[in-house]
Amino acid sequence: MLIAEKPFRTIWSAEDGRSVEIIDQTRLPFELVIARLRTLEDAARAIRDMQVRGAPLIGVAAAYGLWLGLRECADEHHLARIAETLIACRPTAVNLRWAVERVRARLETLPSSEWPAAALAEARRLADEDVATNAAIGRHGLALIEELHRRKGAPVNILTHCNAGWLATVDWGTALAPIYAAFRAGIPLHVWVDETRPRNQGASLTAWELAQEGIPHHLVADNAGGHLMQHGQVDLCLVGSDRTTAEGDVCNKIGTYLKALAAKDNKVPFYVALPGSTVDWRLRDGVAEIPIEERNEREVLQIRGCADDGQVLEVRLAPEGTPACNPAFDVTPARLVTGLITERGICAASREGLRSLYPENVL
Amino acid sequence: MLIAEKPFRTIWSAEDGRSVEIIDQTRLPFELVIARLRTLEDAARAIRDMQVRGAPLIGVAAAYGLWLGLRECADEHHLARIAETLIACRPTAVNLRWAVERVRARLETLPSSEWPAAALAEARRLADEDVATNAAIGRHGLALIEELHRRKGAPVNILTHCNAGWLATVDWGTALAPIYAAFRAGIPLHVWVDETRPRNQGASLTAWELAQEGIPHHLVADNAGGHLMQHGQVDLCLVGSDRTTAEGDVCNKIGTYLKALAAKDNKVPFYVALPGSTVDWRLRDGVAEIPIEERNEREVLQIRGCADDGQVLEVRLAPEGTPACNPAFDVTPARLVTGLITERGICAASREGLRSLYPENVL
Repeated sequence: MLIAEKPFRTIWSAEDGRSVEIIDQTRLPFELVIARLRTLEDAARAIRDMQVRGAPLIGVAAAYGLWLGLRECADEHHLARIAETLIACRPTAVNLRWAVERVRARLETLPSSEWPAAALAEARRLADEDVATNAAIGRHGLALIEELHRRKGAPVNILTHCNAGWLATVDWGTALAPIYAAFRAGIPLHVWVDETRPRNQGASLTAWELAQEGIPHHLVADNAGGHLMQHGQVDLCLVGSDRTTAEGDVCNKIGTYLKALAAKDNKVPFYVALPGSTVDWRLRDGVAEIPIEERNEREVLQIRGCADDGQVLEVRLAPEGTPACNPAFDVTPARLVTGLITERGICAASREGLRSLYPENVL
Repeated sequence: MLIAEKPFRTIWSAEDGRSVEIIDQTRLPFELVIARLRTLEDAARAIRDMQVRGAPLIGVAAAYGLWLGLRECADEHHLARIAETLIACRPTAVNLRWAVERVRARLETLPSSEWPAAALAEARRLADEDVATNAAIGRHGLALIEELHRRKGAPVNILTHCNAGWLATVDWGTALAPIYAAFRAGIPLHVWVDETRPRNQGASLTAWELAQEGIPHHLVADNAGGHLMQHGQVDLCLVGSDRTTAEGDVCNKIGTYLKALAAKDNKVPFYVALPGSTVDWRLRDGVAEIPIEERNEREVLQIRGCADDGQVLEVRLAPEGTPACNPAFDVTPARLVTGLITERGICAASREGLRSLYPENVL
């Protein structure tokens, strides 16, 4: 996608042939910083400190990290240590382990002298696959937005929660991919951006992405969406998914469930865009079966922003000593989801719907 | 209620017999500042700049402001000017105009030499009435919490949104009055405090009030409530109301509607505590008939907090130039409200329910 009218990905191998470059997402939206990763330790730090975030991007960053590690030393013992180091950076990120294992599997049959080049090739392949997957989600979602526009005959208002944009992937994003595709196809649209407390990914990342791409949008407090839907100001809710059950329950950023309830109450279509890789085929009932990560209370109590003098700093929002509780995700039951937009097409949020697109995975 | 174990109201006439003292709510939760109002202009500024806020408290502050103005000069012309000045401070606050008119009506039959003393007496009467109303709401709500505790046999978890505590009134509060009454009656309870973006009244006022009173609580992002309810961690939702229709629709701080939807979906009782004076008997359908104030986008884009060095300052949360939309209230339809807790008792959120308690107002 575009930054200052120039196309970017979130991660790429640098022109020097020896390092990787990333957009440092901890500095957004106040500064655009391209960080260079030269070593395994650089890559591990980027993942651990969330300079890169979003499941698909973390996976690709880890694959590049393997390459950087193998450039330092390519033997069996070192490979195991590199893999461990990378996986330990975000222990709950399923995609991270999956990407590391995939690169290792690719190396198995090769002599260790060829490992660095093979790891680089596999990291690039992973990145390209992610882009292709998201572009396909974008195409399928575009058809949906096109149809809404045809019926309405006016700009389509889309509400999104958190950041499931290109910054969470290598390019295009998941929930935002259909929006980018529709906008580039000339469909007039406007996006309501939930700020997404407590980490504010909507305010700091989604609003930034949309502005760079020139897409009309307004930031709103997470509290506002129900009111907007009551008054006909939302034509479509479009969010991502961190984990999806085989019956179509969706685990996504905390607060997604509240928007799905409001969408149902106001007959607003509520779609979830996701690559098939987020479906955990062993799970049925998301509320009962998906453990929800409780993050540090500090994320609720402190916030980062830019002062009048341009200094970026954290401030405390509550009385000193206030305790906070910080569940990071919630589960939206399939009954509230109008449909799933995947790289293979759109389906109902149900076992039958998912079976129609992923027959190899659903019994 | 208590501050550092000493009982306080939010406003009182000072011991010097010539001025009024208030808790300056713009300085909370970072500093406790008692401000002294000596003149009409002091009172007007306190209302305009939200040093006092909350409908009941604004009304009482205006009544005291009339007294301060009349102490400067008590004639017919000046009285009209004082009333205009005060009403203009918060033009949409229905209660402000009502309080000013009530004091004026009291003066009508008196010689102007008696106006200052009569205005002071009426201001004090208004304050005492507010306290009595809220104490009654507390007693009725206490019975409800008592029953929940009896059935559960464990601490009662109550979720509240925004600040409908004693800081929004003269004392006790509305939604928090039953909580204070229950806690003082020895019922074990715990409060989930919605931070209440964008103005953060939950984080800055409700959390502060509860801590001063020693009531166990946790601050949560507004996004968290649905998840908590899905997992049985909320036994009761208790909120206030800015305006209530004759059919029981409730207009309250933005985001209230989303919590009511989650409560319904999870069979959690959702009660609204309100004095009868917030019912607008002419209104039926709140979503259709109540205009929602759109406040400055700056409230979404900037936030006030306390830096590590103790400095209180505002920081910007979004990319420079991001536009925001800031509806301040939403309407929760009566079908989502389990009951209304008023100074006259608890009733269903319906015309029939309100008629049972306020037969003089409902046809």
